[in-house]
Amino acid sequence: MIAELVTTGSELLLGQIVNTNAAYMASELNKIGIDVCFQTTVGDNRARMKEVLTHALRRADLVITSGGLGPTRGDITKEVSAEVMGRTLALNDECAARLREHFARVGREMTDNNLRQAMIPDGAHIFVNHAGTAPGVAIEQDGKLLVNLPGPPSEMKDMLHRSLLPFLLEKYGAEYMIVSRVLHTFGVGESKLETIIDDLVRAQKNPTLALLVRPTGVIIRITAKAADEAAARQLIAPMEEEIRRRLGDAVYGADKEALEEIVGRDLKARGGTVATAESCTGGLVASRLTDIAGSSDYVKGGIVSYTDEVKGEALGVDRELLAAHGAVSEPVARAMAEGTRRVLRADYGVSTTGFAGPGGGTEQNPVGTVYIAVAGPNGTQAEKHIFTGTRTQVKFRASQAALAMLRRYIKNKDGSIPNHEEEF
Amino acid sequence: MIAELVTTGSELLLGQIVNTNAAYMASELNKIGIDVCFQTTVGDNRARMKEVLTHALRRADLVITSGGLGPTRGDITKEVSAEVMGRTLALNDECAARLREHFARVGREMTDNNLRQAMIPDGAHIFVNHAGTAPGVAIEQDGKLLVNLPGPPSEMKDMLHRSLLPFLLEKYGAEYMIVSRVLHTFGVGESKLETIIDDLVRAQKNPTLALLVRPTGVIIRITAKAADEAAARQLIAPMEEEIRRRLGDAVYGADKEALEEIVGRDLKARGGTVATAESCTGGLVASRLTDIAGSSDYVKGGIVSYTDEVKGEALGVDRELLAAHGAVSEPVARAMAEGTRRVLRADYGVSTTGFAGPGGGTEQNPVGTVYIAVAGPNGTQAEKHIFTGTRTQVKFRASQAALAMLRRYIKNKDGSIPNHEEEF
Repeated sequence: MIAELVTTGSELLLGQIVNTNAAYMASELNKIGIDVCFQTTVGDNRARMKEVLTHALRRADLVITSGGLGPTRGDITKEVSAEVMGRTLALNDECAARLREHFARVGREMTDNNLRQAMIPDGAHIFVNHAGTAPGVAIEQDGKLLVNLPGPPSEMKDMLHRSLLPFLLEKYGAEYMIVSRVLHTFGVGESKLETIIDDLVRAQKNPTLALLVRPTGVIIRITAKAADEAAARQLIAPMEEEIRRRLGDAVYGADKEALEEIVGRDLKARGGTVATAESCTGGLVASRLTDIAGSSDYVKGGIVSYTDEVKGEALGVDRELLAAHGAVSEPVARAMAEGTRRVLRADYGVSTTGFAGPGGGTEQNPVGTVYIAVAGPNGTQAEKHIFTGTRTQVKFRASQAALAMLRRYIKNKDGSIPNHEEEF
Repeated sequence: MIAELVTTGSELLLGQIVNTNAAYMASELNKIGIDVCFQTTVGDNRARMKEVLTHALRRADLVITSGGLGPTRGDITKEVSAEVMGRTLALNDECAARLREHFARVGREMTDNNLRQAMIPDGAHIFVNHAGTAPGVAIEQDGKLLVNLPGPPSEMKDMLHRSLLPFLLEKYGAEYMIVSRVLHTFGVGESKLETIIDDLVRAQKNPTLALLVRPTGVIIRITAKAADEAAARQLIAPMEEEIRRRLGDAVYGADKEALEEIVGRDLKARGGTVATAESCTGGLVASRLTDIAGSSDYVKGGIVSYTDEVKGEALGVDRELLAAHGAVSEPVARAMAEGTRRVLRADYGVSTTGFAGPGGGTEQNPVGTVYIAVAGPNGTQAEKHIFTGTRTQVKFRASQAALAMLRRYIKNKDGSIPNHEEEF
């Protein structure tokens, strides 16, 4: 079955907003085995929308629109859809009652305009909108199905998952399901990762493997195609196990887990606390740690030491050490981690010092160089990294490296840190 | 003139990536008066792409593709384009020479595959790719123009600005130009802002005004249409002046300026330094300040005090004050700002203490409550805010409020702070 997505609205057409709806719908439809072969965007122009829908119904079996179901005169998608399917619109009592209920609940007056949303094409299937006021509709004719979903992403997504996908699965059955699992890695570059799992990438057809570079590091996407979700997950499981066996600690999480969340969980599980000492990351490591709800259980705080004076006075870094090695050096990174651990009385101290750029840097430590240290009950460990990218990219990558190092320290206890041969 | 954008590639069609190219191209074409009436996405399927391009050339005068100009066999856009325009492809010597130069420069071997990028449709205009290897082409036939641009956003944008827009302007002239100016505001809610400039919104047709809610606050977009850019800017200038007159300090910047950049400029201009004391924002204020290149000139550092212990020991906040008022209170916010100013020896101290949620909060200070203080040469000022949203949204909004307050303090010297009647 061939599907076409038609997104409508002048904001999309003028490029004032990016079309995230088309990507979201395509991705979800693909998961249940529906091939989206065309995506079209058109404005709220009656003649052009009619032409687009007519053409879409010629080349696709399933046409799904998003947008133009609002109460204003500019919202014409449902009218034009009814017209191309040869239907008339009439007020639907149930839809009208739901609208009246909605307006009574939010305490706003309902105008006649709003009733346009309760006008339903003759014989259409109705999808209730649980996230807004515009119902969706599905019109079937001569083996073609035309579906109208609302435009606001929250309403579209809610209706897609709650009503449309089950409706399509019941109507057509799923030939197959596509399920993906994402493994997050850090500390091993893309080309080295590729070498490590190259035979798996070459040998496997189902599941397939893809390596993708993301701001957080390289991710490995395992995608399986099977009759149902459980069967797809069974195909994924042994592949995930094999990849984790080969990559060990480099895999820090899966799917939507963030590194700061995983570190937080590890700290909570051990009853440990952490304090930061940040130079080049400027507070980003602390900010990421405290993005997690409940982080006040294990984050004591941190010190952003953007000057030698603050490194000396607030963190107790030895002046002579600073003078001898410079602020961007391994000994200073170690002293910072130990300093914040001592001053803020935490179990673990983590530090960053480096050149985020674009200025600064020396021959020995060019822009992008960051020393990271973790101090804890098993002594102090330090690493040197050289990151590429803009200032904010270097900051983020350094924060990621710091959190990854903290995680390994907490986890391994012996503090062993693998070699870093490549950076991203 | 009617234009259609055709973006190609299976990653777009499968929804694995969002189509930012279409939005970008539409927005830039609109600025020079070209009406984009259709956007279509199709995969690397020869028959479907041919159908899409043929149909696009029927309903539009100008068709611009993006994607599918790479060296692999899956990259078919140029071939299909040549076919629908009735042209044959031949190796172009200049393009081939540029490719060879490129590979010599980066020290990689050039394969025969790569030469596919130097195959050019008969009689086509060539756009040199300064950001990659694939040249773009423009084919003209019977009053229709078909343009092929590369898919990677950096290459597409470079070629669009460097070659395509000047080419189109020379070819068709611009009937008009659309120019927008964005004013960034903070501290006045959307509905109040709307009241203040309501008469301007109603009265004006050119320029038009739009109020939009963004993570940074409410923005006001002034859009003018005129014969050329200078004329459009002349229409915008008096409107901008009137809005700034009415909103005063609530407008903190324009176009791409970020608040942390503006605060940094103000500090640098006055030779002042700043230190932070953060509880609920957890380092985000310091991190944003240090996102700006050269911020080491005015950022001394900061203290993230996530526990009462750290507030007491590192910032010198009085234990009795903490016990009497609680950590989330105006007196503690004041003491934190004064503490970091004193301890880190900065000219200005800025602090945040609040409940970022989802847990915590009291009857008097529900989740979202944040006290912010600025200490400086003219004494200490404090504000209470109540923000809505998720934990990270509350954190960001609090950081924005803290930077906005710091900016006003530095600017006004008398430390006067307007009332906050609404939050976003």
